[in-house]
Parts: sequence; C-alpha cells; structure tokens
Amino acid sequence: MRQTFDEATTPAFGREHAPLIRQAMAAQGLDGFVIPHEDEHQNEYLPAANDRLAWATGFTGSAGAAVLFKDKAALFVDGRYTLQARDQVDTQLFEIRDLMDGGVPAYLQAEAGTGWTIGYDPRLHSPEALERLRAAAARAGAQLKPVATNPLDAAWGKARPPQPRAAVVPHPIAFSGEESVSKRERLGEGLADQGADAALITTPASVAWLFNVRGGDVIRSPLPLSQAILNADGTARLFLDPAKVTPELPAWLGNGVRLEPPEALPEALNELKERRVLVDPAASSAWYFEALRAAGADVIRGPDPTVLPRACKNAVEIEGARHAHVRDGAALSSFLHWVATEAAESLPSELEVVRRLEGFREATGALKDLSFDTIAGAASNGAIVHYRPTERLAKRLERGSLLLVDSGAQYLDGTTDVTRTVAIGAPSREMAERFTLVLKGHLALARVRFPAGTTGSALDTLARAPLWSHGLDFDHGTGHGVGSYLGVHEGPQRISKLPNTVALRPGMIVSNEPGYYKEGGYGIRIENLQVVTAAAPIPGGERPMLGFETLTLAPIDRNLIVVEMLTAEERAQMDAYHARVLEVIGPKVEPAVRAWLEKVCKPL
Amino acid sequence: MRQTFDEATTPAFGREHAPLIRQAMAAQGLDGFVIPHEDEHQNEYLPAANDRLAWATGFTGSAGAAVLFKDKAALFVDGRYTLQARDQVDTQLFEIRDLMDGGVPAYLQAEAGTGWTIGYDPRLHSPEALERLRAAAARAGAQLKPVATNPLDAAWGKARPPQPRAAVVPHPIAFSGEESVSKRERLGEGLADQGADAALITTPASVAWLFNVRGGDVIRSPLPLSQAILNADGTARLFLDPAKVTPELPAWLGNGVRLEPPEALPEALNELKERRVLVDPAASSAWYFEALRAAGADVIRGPDPTVLPRACKNAVEIEGARHAHVRDGAALSSFLHWVATEAAESLPSELEVVRRLEGFREATGALKDLSFDTIAGAASNGAIVHYRPTERLAKRLERGSLLLVDSGAQYLDGTTDVTRTVAIGAPSREMAERFTLVLKGHLALARVRFPAGTTGSALDTLARAPLWSHGLDFDHGTGHGVGSYLGVHEGPQRISKLPNTVALRPGMIVSNEPGYYKEGGYGIRIENLQVVTAAAPIPGGERPMLGFETLTLAPIDRNLIVVEMLTAEERAQMDAYHARVLEVIGPKVEPAVRAWLEKVCKPL
Repeated sequence: MRQTFDEATTPAFGREHAPLIRQAMAAQGLDGFVIPHEDEHQNEYLPAANDRLAWATGFTGSAGAAVLFKDKAALFVDGRYTLQARDQVDTQLFEIRDLMDGGVPAYLQAEAGTGWTIGYDPRLHSPEALERLRAAAARAGAQLKPVATNPLDAAWGKARPPQPRAAVVPHPIAFSGEESVSKRERLGEGLADQGADAALITTPASVAWLFNVRGGDVIRSPLPLSQAILNADGTARLFLDPAKVTPELPAWLGNGVRLEPPEALPEALNELKERRVLVDPAASSAWYFEALRAAGADVIRGPDPTVLPRACKNAVEIEGARHAHVRDGAALSSFLHWVATEAAESLPSELEVVRRLEGFREATGALKDLSFDTIAGAASNGAIVHYRPTERLAKRLERGSLLLVDSGAQYLDGTTDVTRTVAIGAPSREMAERFTLVLKGHLALARVRFPAGTTGSALDTLARAPLWSHGLDFDHGTGHGVGSYLGVHEGPQRISKLPNTVALRPGMIVSNEPGYYKEGGYGIRIENLQVVTAAAPIPGGERPMLGFETLTLAPIDRNLIVVEMLTAEERAQMDAYHARVLEVIGPKVEPAVRAWLEKVCKPL
Repeated sequence: MRQTFDEATTPAFGREHAPLIRQAMAAQGLDGFVIPHEDEHQNEYLPAANDRLAWATGFTGSAGAAVLFKDKAALFVDGRYTLQARDQVDTQLFEIRDLMDGGVPAYLQAEAGTGWTIGYDPRLHSPEALERLRAAAARAGAQLKPVATNPLDAAWGKARPPQPRAAVVPHPIAFSGEESVSKRERLGEGLADQGADAALITTPASVAWLFNVRGGDVIRSPLPLSQAILNADGTARLFLDPAKVTPELPAWLGNGVRLEPPEALPEALNELKERRVLVDPAASSAWYFEALRAAGADVIRGPDPTVLPRACKNAVEIEGARHAHVRDGAALSSFLHWVATEAAESLPSELEVVRRLEGFREATGALKDLSFDTIAGAASNGAIVHYRPTERLAKRLERGSLLLVDSGAQYLDGTTDVTRTVAIGAPSREMAERFTLVLKGHLALARVRFPAGTTGSALDTLARAPLWSHGLDFDHGTGHGVGSYLGVHEGPQRISKLPNTVALRPGMIVSNEPGYYKEGGYGIRIENLQVVTAAAPIPGGERPMLGFETLTLAPIDRNLIVVEMLTAEERAQMDAYHARVLEVIGPKVEPAVRAWLEKVCKPL
C-alpha cells in the first residue's frame, strides 16, 4: 500500500515544539517568528523535512501560516481547513484565525508590541508576501528581521527528517515530446526578447519540465528539489544534490547543461553581477532577490518562463494523457463495479475502499504513485471537502447514502485526477436532485465553446448557475490545472470565482469538478479532467472557438440522475459520454465489469 | 426636436486647427502635446466647450486621445471607433492607432525625439494615466511638462464656445429618497472611519447625487459642472458658478453647505494643509493631487465615496425607476406599433424613425431629455455598433432586413436605456436564428440567481455562451450601470469580459444588452435595464441569493424568435415577460396599440 491511514501529527506537537522554538527565538533576541506553510521551493506539498508548520502546530493542511510571539500564538487557515485545524491543533496554545481576512499582516499589526523584533526566514517567503508583513509590522512599531538560522530548524534539530535524496531520472522524449535543448533554446530566445541574460528557476516542477527529468523528493509528485539558471543562449546550470544524480543523467542532460551541487548556487548567483536576470516574485523566495541584489545583478521581475509552455501540453503529452486516462479509467471502472456489487452489500470501511482502488491501479503495472491521497468520504464524511480517511476518522459505507471518491494516479505518460459520487442503496430524492444540479453544471463546463482570450474565471459561472438557481453553491474552485507526470495542481490557469487573468490556451489540462456538500449529511462531486482544444469549425460560425476534450473515462452513477431535470441537449451529451466510456473502456476490463458497463452506460 | 442630424465636425477640423495648436505649442517651447478626450471633470460626454479632441481632429467618439508632435500626429481610438475615425479625420494628418494596444505611451516611447519637451494639461489627466505617459517619455529620452495655459485652448481662442451655465435646481426628495444632509453625514462617518478629514469630489454626477441637485451643463445628462469638499462632520463646500445658482438653491442646500464660486477652489485646497484628504485617482485629475500636495495636505488615494451609494439605488429611486419604465415602455410600445404598421409599409428613413420615437416620448409630457442620441440602424447600418443617423449617413428601412433602435430618456424619476430589434417584412432564417441566440443569452442573464460577492464579469459569460456555441460573439460589453436621472453610463459595476472586482449589490441598475452584428448585413441587440434584488427565498435553497428584476417593458419581436431553439424554461420566461408587458403597458396606450400588444404578447 502506498497510502497510509495514520495521522502524522497530534495537538501535542504544538505543546511540545512551540516552547523549543521560543527558546531558539529568545537566543536570537526575537520577540516573534513567522512560520509559513511554504518551503524553500514554495512547494504546496512538502517533503517531511520541510513541513515546518505541521511540526510547530500539528496542522497538516496544504495552506496556512503561524505566528509565534513570545507570549501568544496564532494559526492561520482558510475556510476549507477550519474544522481540521481545530481537530489537529491545541487551541489553548494557538488561536485559529482566517488566513484570508487580513491574515498574518493584520495580526502582526494588531498584536505585535512596539519595539519588538519579529524574525522570518527569507528562504521561505516571496518578496510580495514579505512586503505586506513588513508594512504591517511597521504600523505596530515593530521591525521584521531576516534570520541567518531558522530558530524552528534549530529547535527541530536531530529530530528533523533528512532532506529527501530521491534519484533523478531521465523523462523520455516519448513522454515529454520535446528535447530539453529545444525547450531551452526556445525559452532562451524568449529571455533575449525580454532583454534578460538569464532566468533563475527555483520551482521543482519547472526544473523537471525544462530538463526532461523526474525525481521523487516530494510525495505524490515526481519532483526533484533543485534550482537552475537558464541562459539566453539555451545553456543552463542545474543545481542538484550529487546523491540524486543517476549514472545516466549527465549524458541525458548533454553538453549544454552544467550539473553542480546546491552549494555552488550562491557563487553562481554572484557570477550574475551586472547581468539582467529574470526571477518570478510569485515563485522564488525573497532570499534569491536579496542574493542577486547583493551580487549586483539587474533583477527583472516576471513570470517563471517555463510556466506557460509547461501548462500548454504538446501533442505527445496530450496523447500520453489520453493513454493514461484509458488505463486509469479501466482501473476506476473495475473499482466502481466492485463498489456497485460487493461493497454495496458488505458496506466496508472507507479504508477498504481506498485499498481496493489502489489495488486496481497497482494492477495496471504502470502506477508510479498516487497523484494525491485518495479521499473516500462515506455519508457525512463526504461533506468534508478536505477529508482524508484515517484509522481514527474512517466510517463504513451507509445504505441510503452516498460515497464520494476523489483520487488520481501518476503514470509516466500522464497524471490523473477524478471524482465519482455513487449511491449506496437507494438515494433520497434530494440527493438525486442535487447530484443532477451538480451534473448540469459539470456538463455545461464540458461542452462550452469560447473565444481565445477567455479566462477560467469567466467559465466558472457555467458550472455554478444550476446550483445557484436552487439557492445552493459550493465553497471551492471549479477547476485547477494538472501537470504531465508532474504536480496534480498546476497553474497558471484556474477555473474559479477568484479573478484570474490567464486566458485558457490549447493544450492546457484543467479539472471540471463542481460539487455540493450537505454538512453532516453527504457530499457530491463530479470531476473529470479535460484538455483545451481548438474546437472543430462550427457550421455557420464566424469566429474560431476553443473547447474541451474530456480525458477522464468512467461511468457517472445513473442512479443519481433525475432524467427529467436534464434538457434534451444535456441528455444527449450524457449519453454520448457514456457511449464513449463503454466503447473505449469496455474492451480493457474483465468480462463481468464489461457486462456491468454495458448496463450503466446505456442511454438514459 | 431634441436630436439633430448634422455632423458637428469634418476632416477639415484637423487641417485647420492642428497648425494653430502647433503655433501655440511652439510659443511655449513644446515639441509635442497630448490631447485626451476627457475634460476637467473626466466626463465621458462633454460640453462643446470641452470637446478639445473633436476640435483638434474632427473625431467625435466618446473615448480617445491624440498626440500632436511638431512634425507628425496620431489619433488613438478603440476598435469600436476605427471606422468612424477614418470617416471623420484627415488620415494624411493623423495616423489612426489603437488606443488599447500600447496606446499613447507606446507612441511616445517610439516616436518622441531625444531631448524633446512634451506638454500636457494637468487638469485633463488622471495621475495614473500621467504616470504611464511620464515613464514612456523618459524611455524616449524626452520629458513631460505640465502647461499653465493649454495651447489648444489658446489656439481655439474666441471660437471656443462659452462654458455652459445651465441652472442648477433642487432634485426633490420624492425622487432622491434621502435628504442630502443624511447622505453627507453618512458618508462623513465613512470618511472618519477611513481616517480622512475630508473628501474632494470632482465628478459632476457625484456632486449632483450628494446635494440632491441637477444641472444641464452636459447634453443628455442633467449634470452640473462643479466640485465639492465633503468634511467628515457632514458639512461641505460646493463650488458652483453663481450664474447657475437658482434662487431656491441656497435654502435647498441648507446651513451645512457653503456655496462658493469656482475661483474659491484653489484657496479652499490650500486650507486643507495638514489635513487628510481622500481623492479618487481614477476620477480626479493630476492637477488636484498636485494642488493638495503643494498645500501640504495628506492625500489618501481611494474611491470617490459617493460612487457605491450612488450606484445602489434606494427604495424611492427604484420605485421611481419602475414608474419611469412604465411611462417609457408605453411610449416605446406605441413607437413599435408604428414601426410594425405604418413604417413597415412606407419604409421611411432612419431620421423619421428617430423623430417619431422622440415624438412618442415627448408626448408623455415628462421628458426632460433623451439619455443619449437615438441609434436607429436600418439593415447594414445596424451592424455599426456606435452608429448615429445623420443626414449624410441615414438609410431607409429595407424590407427583408432588420431595424435596430437603441434609445433612452431622462425623466425626473429615472433614466431609461432600451434596445429593440425588429424585422421589417419577412426576416431570413439566419436573422431569426441569430436573434434567438442573442435572446437566449439575454434571458439567461435576466433569470440568473447568484450569491453575494458575484461580479458582473462572472455573469457576462451567461449572455455569450449561446452565441459562442455557434461560433459567434459580439465586441462590446454586456451591461453598464445606469444612474437615477443622472448618467446613462455609471459605474462601478459592469457586466463585461474585462475583469471587474466590484460585486453586484441590491439596488444597482444594469443593462442587459447582448448583440450580434453581421458587417455589411444587419445588427441585432436586445437590451433591458434590470435592478439587482434580493431574490425571493428558493424552496429547498440553503443560501440567500441575489437576482434581477427587469425594469424595461416593451415587446420583443416574436417574428424573430425561432421557438424550437428555446428550452421550455426559456419559453416560459419569454411568455411571462410578454404577459407582464401586456398587463402593465396595455392600459397605458391607445386602443389600437393595445390591440396590437395583445397580439404580439401572446404566448409563443
């Protein structure tokens, strides 16, 4: 089993570790210290060695921050994580506050004492975030001070897990679709056009994409912790722990790439003196900006140049994604068959659901990892958006309720992410009606055509309008970008209520995952991945339009669809999708599963 | 007749006036001069005395700018106005450039000579716009210099029309719904909360709303050119030409308002020394910021405090809008009856269409003004989005084509804006299909329910998706805010592809006006005004939702609706709207018109 059901932290973490951190703070003369969730690479998912926020507080969510003053402390989480934070953290010790409503800056401004010195680790904060902290501290009459040694790291000491050293291996051209040298030369020209001599790249996914390599330093995504400098002539320097360098790697990287240990990075930055260097203030921490400034480099603030080409998958990557989704769809369909037959009878626990799904994926022989820990939420657990089953929390399936399963896989040819919600026994009328509203939104976002320049923010409403018309909504984004055997959450595109100015472009993969959650009752989410394509010319149309090709292939539970709530267009769309599932997945599964697919994929 | 059909300018304007401006520039040692469309009040619609861009170039559109160098010149307009600019301006003299694609700053950077001095009138530019111009000039090695005397004004000299001096009159509480003193005290408290001692207000619509007065300095909107200083204690100073002050005005304004001539403003700004003054950098020109800085005031940049309360109409204003729309709907229905009967036979010119519509509105006895010049576009003229009929351009109606009429009225109780597109004779199948697609978008935006916090940008897609699905779109916004007997274009809300972070709030009036334009063929637009309301609780709903109440009442041409393209929901919505038109407007019109309404408002 790849997934485990233990809990990595307890509320005792904060009780035991906060005093140690305060001792280390006092030794440095600090009255406070800011602990962000992000690490040196601004990663969302962290290696255990970098999960400082969890060690300090007990909170394991994927976003947050804490402030430790000498006399009080607060943990900041967004609305998704409020319940989880109260469960994982000692609230006597940490006040739980809203990350969004003013967040850390408002707390510093209101609670820091005049004359206080508040430390921060410049390797962990983006320059933009830091600017807000600095201004807030100043308004409180306090000053913000970078630390040379992180007092949390000092307190953690020997108990801290070692930095990961997973092997970094070539990612073959059969999957990447473009030689690294071609990417580097293409992006190098772009740098020259911007007047830059070089770009500093500190995001592991960017390094992996640029050099066509994959690593394993971060669980659930094949990321190599590393940094690189890309020169405008297409040559590059790659800073990688020698312990991770596999024998074939140097030849794979070729002559244009100098492979160096991480310790060589500071000197390499010094060598950028008087050169114009592009750095992304949203992706690279303040430490890099300060190091380049001290070196006398001329910093250009701008987006990491790999982000947009990485998001727009090439033809080989898209074909890989199709293959990965057929493989994954067969495993998922076998799993759904098991749920509909055995599990609906035996009503196992969520843990068994997770184990069986992993087993079907493992049986493909191609599974490299899960793309995230499977969420299997039975009945009321399904209503907790960021639920993950553990020994302590898991429920058994309940007859007359729903099971929500959100899962994904990492394959060499693609990353998957899919949610299906199924009825266990007979669902209530309300469950089916609300499922159908979610489905109507999902279908609208799957079939939409839109002109170039349209953002995910503009499309988000299509997925919500059917729920809105019934006085309902859901409190998470509708879609996120997905990498190609990389991170399962990848920007810059996003389908969300939040303003986003990045237009959707052909080759971008996004999830389409509206939902509905009845607190204490049940949860519904329907999620497919879809890739932006140039839509086929429309008879009588005057303007080229973009559209989506749905990648995910697995049946949607017809027992939950109130057919009379669908328009003729929606019904035809649903039937066409199910026909495609049967046609493509049917030949890939066991006869019993195929027979079941024939039944559940019939026209509505 | 209020509307005229002459053309105020010709391409000769530029040929004759540009040399005079260049002489005045040379006398001040300027190598270039920037001429924005906006005036001292950042007005969209201008009094003739302030329409400098039209005098300098011949271009009369509602947005644009020109740059006059000593040896060349360019006019900048957006895509809506490219054709009009080529028609109105001597293109030998003025290169026509895109206002959006880099605009004036890019031109300055590329074309200004090293060492040049480029003048600007600080009364006409917002500080934000100026910052961009300054940076661009610097990159060209040129410098930007404020002028004490505008060389264009100097060149214009005696030929320049006098500043308007229309009477400023009380706007009764029966229409405004809130006493000025209440507005001033409420907003004054808001200023205090922001830490401001006062706000400087330079937008005529804001002054009109705050003091419950109306003027007539700008055609088609009852605006008094004026400025005010609102103090945190609710008292105010109002700077108004004494020639505009009507006898009843001082008593109407009351003791809390000091009425002063415009010449007193500079000294009043000086008196703000060391006080914290809120000024809107999007609404007030750089001159005010510079004057306050020189006076030693502490300027707080933030939105004009009247903008949001002015946009959110109170119950009296909403009731007034309903009355205005019944009155206007009766006039419009009488006009549409005339089009369907007499005009469809006699095929008059667009000018006659405009005259008749104005006649029906004049006959209400309540018309204060049009809210903008009526657009009556027959056949291919309908495809020109910013078309206005003139003697030179007007066409006669054509059988087998469409007539697009976009018009509105100013009444004491409300401002209207409505577009109807009608078939003259039998329309083609294509016309009807495209009309029906536009209608589907219009209906979606009329019936949508949405949670608090939703912006117009999020709703825009609903109006376009039916067109997109057929490879079609339109190149203008879907909706704009509308004032209460004030401007027909009023922010801050907007329904548009462009990102807008202002949430729609109860009481905001917006237009809903999707369209389709076939160049050289015909134009379609369907426009109603609608007010944001707290939607009635939805059975089974869990969250409060907002919605729209449609204000505009006039039939939509059933001859252009392809019924089988509508869903059952859309058809019921259309039938309910027509039933309401018949019920409310039927009793207000002549028997012949009522009989016609009974026919055209029947269920589809």
